[in-house]
Amino acid sequence: MVCDLNSDLGESFGPWPMGDDVAMLDIVSSANIACGFHAGDPAGILRTIKAAVERNIAIGAHVGYRDLAGFGRRNMEPTSEELFGDVIYQIGALKGLAAAAKAKVTYVKPHGALYNTIAHNQRQADDVIRAIKAIDPELVLLALAGAPVVEQARAAGLTVVEEVFADRAYTADGQLVSRTQPGAVVHDVNEVASRALAMARDGVVKSIDGQTIKLNAQSICVHGDSPNAVALARTVRQAFDAAGLRIEPFAPAI
Amino acid sequence: MVCDLNSDLGESFGPWPMGDDVAMLDIVSSANIACGFHAGDPAGILRTIKAAVERNIAIGAHVGYRDLAGFGRRNMEPTSEELFGDVIYQIGALKGLAAAAKAKVTYVKPHGALYNTIAHNQRQADDVIRAIKAIDPELVLLALAGAPVVEQARAAGLTVVEEVFADRAYTADGQLVSRTQPGAVVHDVNEVASRALAMARDGVVKSIDGQTIKLNAQSICVHGDSPNAVALARTVRQAFDAAGLRIEPFAPAI
Amino acid sequence: MVCDLNSDLGESFGPWPMGDDVAMLDIVSSANIACGFHAGDPAGILRTIKAAVERNIAIGAHVGYRDLAGFGRRNMEPTSEELFGDVIYQIGALKGLAAAAKAKVTYVKPHGALYNTIAHNQRQADDVIRAIKAIDPELVLLALAGAPVVEQARAAGLTVVEEVFADRAYTADGQLVSRTQPGAVVHDVNEVASRALAMARDGVVKSIDGQTIKLNAQSICVHGDSPNAVALARTVRQAFDAAGLRIEPFAPAI
Amino acid sequence: MVCDLNSDLGESFGPWPMGDDVAMLDIVSSANIACGFHAGDPAGILRTIKAAVERNIAIGAHVGYRDLAGFGRRNMEPTSEELFGDVIYQIGALKGLAAAAKAKVTYVKPHGALYNTIAHNQRQADDVIRAIKAIDPELVLLALAGAPVVEQARAAGLTVVEEVFADRAYTADGQLVSRTQPGAVVHDVNEVASRALAMARDGVVKSIDGQTIKLNAQSICVHGDSPNAVALARTVRQAFDAAGLRIEPFAPAI
Repeated sequence: MVCDLNSDLGESFGPWPMGDDVAMLDIVSSANIACGFHAGDPAGILRTIKAAVERNIAIGAHVGYRDLAGFGRRNMEPTSEELFGDVIYQIGALKGLAAAAKAKVTYVKPHGALYNTIAHNQRQADDVIRAIKAIDPELVLLALAGAPVVEQARAAGLTVVEEVFADRAYTADGQLVSRTQPGAVVHDVNEVASRALAMARDGVVKSIDGQTIKLNAQSICVHGDSPNAVALARTVRQAFDAAGLRIEPFAPAI
Repeated sequence: MVCDLNSDLGESFGPWPMGDDVAMLDIVSSANIACGFHAGDPAGILRTIKAAVERNIAIGAHVGYRDLAGFGRRNMEPTSEELFGDVIYQIGALKGLAAAAKAKVTYVKPHGALYNTIAHNQRQADDVIRAIKAIDPELVLLALAGAPVVEQARAAGLTVVEEVFADRAYTADGQLVSRTQPGAVVHDVNEVASRALAMARDGVVKSIDGQTIKLNAQSICVHGDSPNAVALARTVRQAFDAAGLRIEPFAPAI
Repeated sequence: MVCDLNSDLGESFGPWPMGDDVAMLDIVSSANIACGFHAGDPAGILRTIKAAVERNIAIGAHVGYRDLAGFGRRNMEPTSEELFGDVIYQIGALKGLAAAAKAKVTYVKPHGALYNTIAHNQRQADDVIRAIKAIDPELVLLALAGAPVVEQARAAGLTVVEEVFADRAYTADGQLVSRTQPGAVVHDVNEVASRALAMARDGVVKSIDGQTIKLNAQSICVHGDSPNAVALARTVRQAFDAAGLRIEPFAPAI
Repeated sequence: MVCDLNSDLGESFGPWPMGDDVAMLDIVSSANIACGFHAGDPAGILRTIKAAVERNIAIGAHVGYRDLAGFGRRNMEPTSEELFGDVIYQIGALKGLAAAAKAKVTYVKPHGALYNTIAHNQRQADDVIRAIKAIDPELVLLALAGAPVVEQARAAGLTVVEEVFADRAYTADGQLVSRTQPGAVVHDVNEVASRALAMARDGVVKSIDGQTIKLNAQSICVHGDSPNAVALARTVRQAFDAAGLRIEPFAPAI
């Protein structure tokens, strides 16, 4: 039994730290590394890449909208030409920094508002998919499990890995409960760990109204920027270890 | 007889155009393309790359300080870690956009204040040299003819091509006359063309005090952002054609 | 008979010029001056302010989304706290630069996507209205004629001036035809001038389907950034002069 | 006996917090608040202003170079026109946000590299001084005690308050020991407190080579962004309280 744990890292900027990348890299198998548009400056990104390389962690390009002040969390409507270029630019920059650390970028995970938008917005999804194919069609796309973008990207020829969130509530039809709804986020560390385990081992989770639903949990996201991020990730990891579930990246870590 | 003509291109940003890239690409053999830090947005950079590819023009990364408002023309003092990362990031981003156009970045020319600073500032030169070697040691460095950086980069193992400026006055010892001095810039188009020819064919130029000095003119820069940039470049090109001097890139154009 | 002509100015950024501010300032009565978020750097803004002051032109804060690469033309969804702060910050910055030129900012015109969004989006409109009231409730709001924001802002206590566009087609119920529709923009200079005159003098315009509709044309926008912007503005001005219609700002020009 | 304690605040940016502004505002009498160029976004700046207003703390504009990634700590060489405009823009923006909180900006303290540069660079100092006079000649300049800028600004008509650093070593002739030298920073909290007290009460400090030197300590800076910033500031405050030294702003706090 194998599952991937991923986390958003490299999100410091200039003098401002964010998260504890080194601690998280001791836990996860895949590092979604910021590319400078929503977060991340080159020197800091490179430090995170090097720490990932030392631990044999897979490196993904965490591409976002060009919105530093909003941390890429605000919906935006770039044109297709803009979004296509912005995604290639960010992946290219990360590939360059990875090359300097003798590492490789092996997947792409869109960040924040871009992640949520392409889950269902076919036009922006198409821009991102074409961008990935244009720069490197071997890159795997990490996308929201069950969302339309998964099939769209596969139809376009990309390898897609489906991602689930152990600390987020799901509706009975497998959608994420909006953060604006009560109960959208699961805060109890042990409950998150047991949900993660059920997702990874059994491919199921209990929906917000108590039904057992199926999910294709190829990778589980553990957030890196909350105050107890490291503790939560460690608890998930320990639950997996205790259950004999191996944590391995879905894409090569070189 | 062969010489390279290079020009700074891809310097539009968002809604703001700069220069006439397509016209210049019909004249020059090498395109120094902005990488987003001093100028250039991804969509516009990609348009310029595509226009270069269609014309078989060599593509160079025109890396600059992170100073959009100042167009990379203001001296800055990034730390070594910052400058190392910034240069890799910019080259990587351009490589990514070039890959999307099935093209290759084959050289690096620092821009503006960074160009002038590394000509003699050994510490910043070292940061740039190490950055180039870290991302791709095959990249050629285009640098100020006769400046200390030329030997420094060669000693570090880089291939260096020396660049001269046909529209700039030189001192008797082969230095550029500072732009703050009278006579620093040659404005007459025909004079610029004949100086370019003397540089490329004979390896000489007349200094500001009338002496004939030697220059290693492996590439001649024709500025792309002045009002009469295209007319000037065209005149230089015609002078070269008339003299039977072939214009060819120093680095591969693919 | 009096009408105001306004234009978007101060939209250069760093090395990139945009439009011919001085020529436009000889024609219009109100200058919507960029505040640095979608366009405009402090030195360039100050030059435009000074040119406006010399001509006794009213100065308005042209506030936009924080999106330089997209020129504030892309829809964004800042939080209320962010938008409230961003609008105050921009108005304050322009007030400071105006004070340095012994001038005053007397009105506010949101720019681009923010202009269009607050026309009907009550939440973002409220953020902008509260921001204006918080920094200076004497500031007049220049807003889309007939849009819900007009009444919303008046109900909140602001003075609102309604703006029309002589080069844009209107539907029979007084809405702007979307730029994505054919015929949305009127290109013929003389037709634009005669529409402007009908709007300003008679308060009417012919809709895209041939009906005569009423508009509250307290101010007419003449765009400053199109290639023939100055010629178009001059033609409108000449039509007004010939008709004996005085061009005067709606807000004080000091 | 009265002295001012000031601290650099409002230096968060978007999702990235910095320092504990509320805790520091319970200790100091003057708040140097970032203006968005080296740090600070409008919403965060406004939160800090409101917290300062509640505590009757004086508000100063902490203006910096336009260098967010470098936190304004890197030397830059803006032109006079650029620096003049940038300083006015930042002060104006902060004045606007202060007005929204019914507060006033009463002084200006340049930040980081700009602070150090204008201490002795007459050209950049002149740009800053002219900018302050242009927007509001009543603003007090907070500057490095004993530096040439103090007399330069006074000669230009500004009120200048001299600032000392209790946690920095001084040479025998009253200069700050460069941070690149050993012993440049005093780390012991109690030693910092006793130095602060000697500075404030007696106008003296012991130089790095053991001599007692005079300083005009009208305001003492307590850094806000180090890990133990709050503890250090509190210790200084307690030492002042115990010595019966009142902590009061040098400029009005309204």
